[in-house]
Amino acid sequence: MKSYFRPEIDALAGYTAGEQPKIANLIKLNTNENPYPPSPAVAKALQEFDIDRLRRYPDPFADELRDLFAADCKVKRENVIAGNGSDDLLTMCFRAFTSPEHPVAVFDPSYSLYPVLAAMQGAEVIKVSLNMPDFSYPENGATLAGKANMLVITRPNAPTGTLCPKELVRKYCREFDGIVLIDEAYGDFAADNCMDLVAEFDNVIVMRTFSKSCSMAGVRLGYAVSDPVIIEGLMKLKDSYNVDMLSQVVGKANYLDKSYRAECISAIRRDRDAMRDALLKLGFEIPESHANFLFAAPPDGNGEACFLYLRENAVLVRYFKGSVTGRYIRITIGTPEENARVLELLTSKYA
Amino acid sequence: MKSYFRPEIDALAGYTAGEQPKIANLIKLNTNENPYPPSPAVAKALQEFDIDRLRRYPDPFADELRDLFAADCKVKRENVIAGNGSDDLLTMCFRAFTSPEHPVAVFDPSYSLYPVLAAMQGAEVIKVSLNMPDFSYPENGATLAGKANMLVITRPNAPTGTLCPKELVRKYCREFDGIVLIDEAYGDFAADNCMDLVAEFDNVIVMRTFSKSCSMAGVRLGYAVSDPVIIEGLMKLKDSYNVDMLSQVVGKANYLDKSYRAECISAIRRDRDAMRDALLKLGFEIPESHANFLFAAPPDGNGEACFLYLRENAVLVRYFKGSVTGRYIRITIGTPEENARVLELLTSKYA
Repeated sequence: MKSYFRPEIDALAGYTAGEQPKIANLIKLNTNENPYPPSPAVAKALQEFDIDRLRRYPDPFADELRDLFAADCKVKRENVIAGNGSDDLLTMCFRAFTSPEHPVAVFDPSYSLYPVLAAMQGAEVIKVSLNMPDFSYPENGATLAGKANMLVITRPNAPTGTLCPKELVRKYCREFDGIVLIDEAYGDFAADNCMDLVAEFDNVIVMRTFSKSCSMAGVRLGYAVSDPVIIEGLMKLKDSYNVDMLSQVVGKANYLDKSYRAECISAIRRDRDAMRDALLKLGFEIPESHANFLFAAPPDGNGEACFLYLRENAVLVRYFKGSVTGRYIRITIGTPEENARVLELLTSKYA
Repeated sequence: MKSYFRPEIDALAGYTAGEQPKIANLIKLNTNENPYPPSPAVAKALQEFDIDRLRRYPDPFADELRDLFAADCKVKRENVIAGNGSDDLLTMCFRAFTSPEHPVAVFDPSYSLYPVLAAMQGAEVIKVSLNMPDFSYPENGATLAGKANMLVITRPNAPTGTLCPKELVRKYCREFDGIVLIDEAYGDFAADNCMDLVAEFDNVIVMRTFSKSCSMAGVRLGYAVSDPVIIEGLMKLKDSYNVDMLSQVVGKANYLDKSYRAECISAIRRDRDAMRDALLKLGFEIPESHANFLFAAPPDGNGEACFLYLRENAVLVRYFKGSVTGRYIRITIGTPEENARVLELLTSKYA
């Protein structure tokens, strides 16, 4: 049968997301979801929602949300765009700034979705290797990104949990002649963020998601902040009504409960650091994490065996094949009970 | 300031969606929404929803929904893909099948989003004119579509409400060497549909939405049915979790209440035909409508004046500039009370 697909799509392997298995009593620590539920305000918002409204299209721009985000980021509404998860916003950025004539530069290792999005566009991917063994960032990153039209910085980085120092990010923004996309999906778990670089540079996009620190992976909500010229261009690319009405309603209710969210984040950071200390004592190698997960290499350097051992014991973590990443597993920080069970299992195997 | 956007994006005018104004007491008949609320089962589903689930990613494939759609369409799950509205599915199709080397053919006039999606891809748009004055379809449509890689048939058509005869659609599918995308956004308001052509041809995609007949424009849910090879390719292009969890939950609850939906559709069809008869008596020209709207040219052939007159009287309909379309307004069928008000206003002006 003849294929009608563009050759780039036929050649595409597609992105492999973390499993969402339906196994009873599974401890699911593989996709960096939040162990705590969203704010109780969400239940109230759903109870009060008048379903008659659903027959209408939602606000195409999600302006109420944009105004909330803008106020917190000390920018204006026109600096903000909302997306159906940051996946939607990443897709817009790759469609806007990459093509066969517009390569993209990413750090390696980093979020494995970026090369897939580049492949859809037929865009070359320039991989800038992190320094080993500590996954630190090369000073000359902007030079190594070369002729790319967009440089993606995941901050904190996935799957390593490490943080590119802010002064170095600033240096990249200054030196790189193209869009610097700073993906802050895990930014709320770090001690600082790069939002103020948007005011400093006209080539910076900072992106955030409700899927991690906001306990709303199921809702699909994210936002990007940038120069109004950039936002205006991205708006042309988005689906007209990309963020649905219920997402706007529950997203707002959840976002406004800042003290609840701060408590959840604080608990996760505390448990992350305690878990790291405990695993270091078992002989694991773990770069300091600024996210809600640990990138942990077992003492024998066999990430896959560790992944399979945990899976046999009903704990699902993430494993990435590869000469560098294959030594590690990525463990999402769960509830104290879940973390205790992981520690018990790993102690039993590696102590 | 240098632009980092691809030239195609810089050149893009962007799509103009129908207004969603916040005017009190406005009769809003401009975006073909349903005048009736979704099924009461939706309120129940929201009341019973456990918000703790929102911290998890949704089913990336929306398999429960796919199975429901597949059963009704007499196909298998692998024949179905769900989208964040049919906008999302249209975007996937344009990304999959159009490029500078892969033109797309559309009928003219038709849904004004298609050329915008083509422009994002840098794809040429081949416009196949409908026959005037009745907006009928040319027998040699497949030939006129020429070297296009995809031919889009909107059935019923927007903004005209007319229906390409099914035998002619079949002829197009047989003769056209490319993807035939049949957009059935308004299909539930017509007497027949083209779903069975999916089994007959391996180049056919039939697309449906919850925004019109299902009273769920606010939810953003749609699905496409095609050969499993086509669906597999589209799956590679979709965002990993494109349909959020609440949309899956309320979409299912609403979809299962088929008798309620059938009643709403039946009322809209009845009121549409009555409204057309009344306007014909006033001297309007209106092609027979198979959708939930009328494409109506006032006796003086001045669509814009009619649009503005209604707008001054707090009734919003849609007007499309152009030598053909500019003679008409497009009126969504509303509640009996809304329709009566429109008729009263038009009678007062044109009788």
